[in-house]
Amino acid sequence: KFTRLKRDVAQINVDPLQRGGILTPEARAALVEWGDGYSICDFCAGMLDHIRNPPVEEFVHSILPEFLDIDEVRVTHGAREGKFAAMHSLCQKGDFVVMDGNAHYTSVLAAERAGLNVEYVPSSKEPDYAISSEGYALAIERAYEKKGNVTLALLTYPDGNYGNLADARAIADVCHDYGVPLLLNGAYSVGRMPVKARELGADIIVGSGHKSMAACGPVGVLGASEEYARIIFKPSATKKNKEVELLGCTVRGAPLITLMASFPTVVERVGRWPEELENARWFSSEMEKMDLVQVGDRPHNHDLMFFLTERLYDISQTAKGGRYFLYREMKDRGVCGIKPGLTRQFKLSTYGLGRPELEVVLNALSEIIESHE
Amino acid sequence: KFTRLKRDVAQINVDPLQRGGILTPEARAALVEWGDGYSICDFCAGMLDHIRNPPVEEFVHSILPEFLDIDEVRVTHGAREGKFAAMHSLCQKGDFVVMDGNAHYTSVLAAERAGLNVEYVPSSKEPDYAISSEGYALAIERAYEKKGNVTLALLTYPDGNYGNLADARAIADVCHDYGVPLLLNGAYSVGRMPVKARELGADIIVGSGHKSMAACGPVGVLGASEEYARIIFKPSATKKNKEVELLGCTVRGAPLITLMASFPTVVERVGRWPEELENARWFSSEMEKMDLVQVGDRPHNHDLMFFLTERLYDISQTAKGGRYFLYREMKDRGVCGIKPGLTRQFKLSTYGLGRPELEVVLNALSEIIESHE
Ligand SMILES: Cc1ncc(COP(=O)(O)O)c(C=O)c1O
Ligand SMILES: Cc1ncc(COP(=O)(O)O)c(C=O)c1O
Repeated sequence: KFTRLKRDVAQINVDPLQRGGILTPEARAALVEWGDGYSICDFCAGMLDHIRNPPVEEFVHSILPEFLDIDEVRVTHGAREGKFAAMHSLCQKGDFVVMDGNAHYTSVLAAERAGLNVEYVPSSKEPDYAISSEGYALAIERAYEKKGNVTLALLTYPDGNYGNLADARAIADVCHDYGVPLLLNGAYSVGRMPVKARELGADIIVGSGHKSMAACGPVGVLGASEEYARIIFKPSATKKNKEVELLGCTVRGAPLITLMASFPTVVERVGRWPEELENARWFSSEMEKMDLVQVGDRPHNHDLMFFLTERLYDISQTAKGGRYFLYREMKDRGVCGIKPGLTRQFKLSTYGLGRPELEVVLNALSEIIESHE
Repeated sequence: KFTRLKRDVAQINVDPLQRGGILTPEARAALVEWGDGYSICDFCAGMLDHIRNPPVEEFVHSILPEFLDIDEVRVTHGAREGKFAAMHSLCQKGDFVVMDGNAHYTSVLAAERAGLNVEYVPSSKEPDYAISSEGYALAIERAYEKKGNVTLALLTYPDGNYGNLADARAIADVCHDYGVPLLLNGAYSVGRMPVKARELGADIIVGSGHKSMAACGPVGVLGASEEYARIIFKPSATKKNKEVELLGCTVRGAPLITLMASFPTVVERVGRWPEELENARWFSSEMEKMDLVQVGDRPHNHDLMFFLTERLYDISQTAKGGRYFLYREMKDRGVCGIKPGLTRQFKLSTYGLGRPELEVVLNALSEIIESHE
């Protein structure tokens, strides 16, 4: 029962979670070569990030810092684990972390696990859900009124619901005026689009290998400017070559090799971001021709988009299968990734899909609408 | 450079870290099928451990609790992450954790990361390095003398240096007399030999998928009796279906599927443990015929063994390549896994190697010794 499990997905998977994590052929080959247990640890002299065979050291200490434009980088199990490591090491229990109202649940959980209070920066609500830099100033002030110690701010860049890209630079400036470092959650940007921490003013940045860097989960990256890296990556008091927050080492297996194997392709696709954006905007405009309305930033600046789809909801009221009709009928047409049961609103991503594939998605939707109305 | 990395290991790898993590053919196939990013999350309704397609729910909530004989189990990134989760949730900063002097560095780091003090139970030193239950009583008393609050005890079962199996049941009884729960670190036992938490008196248990369960790293298991599971796996105050210590979910990718795919084979090999033990003991006796002396439990009760090898050290004094001669000459004979540079003492594991392969290892050593002396 557990031995020959097959993954039951359609040809085209528009789930935002899945689009950026599809392996390159090189990463797939790496999985087979490095699949065994602790495969990458054969030649470890005590620190994962300094392993030279395979060349982890160069990847972690030269390539990634340059890619993210930040002083120090380490490999983590994912974006959430990076956020927790930063919060756990930089903040004290009871401190406040200020974060955007669009933040992913994992940011909230990381704060909760670290014993922190959260002060939210509310979004502008429907239909923009925008996050402003003034909102960060107000949230910090509110925390101060509660006698809170604000030791970290977090911006979801972009957020995982609307794919909105706030003005990170302006937000960083506001946070820095208050002496608060900014953590940029790049789970949906690092590996998809150009993200340079220094330019954006981010002091700490996290990325997600399985979400946006064509890697097998769980794997992610955590970068920090020197000032904060010193604290986050502090070595143990007794085990001198082991970093406490990483419990010595993190991804001790093939997922790290897939991150490395895909990396040249990832760099190249980041360079093709303008094309991706054009595809996303074109897709959005085609959806709107069917009265499926995109909310969030307009024009949109990311491949993750949220649509209000009242028309499909109306159909679900009488369709066979009820609210599951959309999932089934899309799957019959070779498309999955819209959450089963959703009809009134959903998000999807166009990342890495060419026009012909996006046309399959659009045609499926228009066929379904026509066949029911 | 990063795209076509090959793993450069010999035919027979006796590194204890590597023996129990070699994938089954089923797990290797699973890696290819489930390699993409968050592959296992296609049908997630919000909780990783309740995913039904693939059948994670049955695996985590029925199969694993029965296998470990404990109330609740979750999947983690590995043994260390499980230990940290338990310490972080069960103990307060400044509390004391009592652990065996043979404990793995990751137990120490987990305690340090959680802000805990460590009181060690010293081993009996050379050549047995034994850990006694009285030692736990004394360590708890010492912590009390320091006005410490002892909220957890940990036993490494077996330890990663000597492969010693202490009397867990007796240690559990002592800890329970003091009202202290016992965490059993089964990184080197769960998946290799029969381990039943309830029988051994363990309140919490961790295992390592990549080390001992034929899985691709990083993945592990964390089990707890109901009393402690309630605390360790507490849901978030605001995100009701997400467990705080797990940051919502842990292994969101193929390593979990490899754990599942290998599991039937793992159950079967655990049943063959007596054979494994016989092989280990036979190997040890053959080593001693060459004056390579096994320390730790005698007769030995585990496949991980530590040898004092003065004879090889003597050879290294004049051999070409100095202290690296052994690594090179073993590799020439198709054997790796003794740490490069070590000659005077080293550990290795016989796990999963049949007599013919163990003979290759023994012959390699005896040839090397003969050719130099
Ligand atoms: C915005 C955002 N951040 C973080 C995450 C979590 O990423 P990871 O799985 O790498 O922790 C997600 C996952 O959906 C996300 O959407
Ligand atoms: C005794 C022992 N415990 C724990 C670990 C760490 O296991 P994991 O990589 O699953 O955290 C090791 C690794 O060598 C070990 O030897």
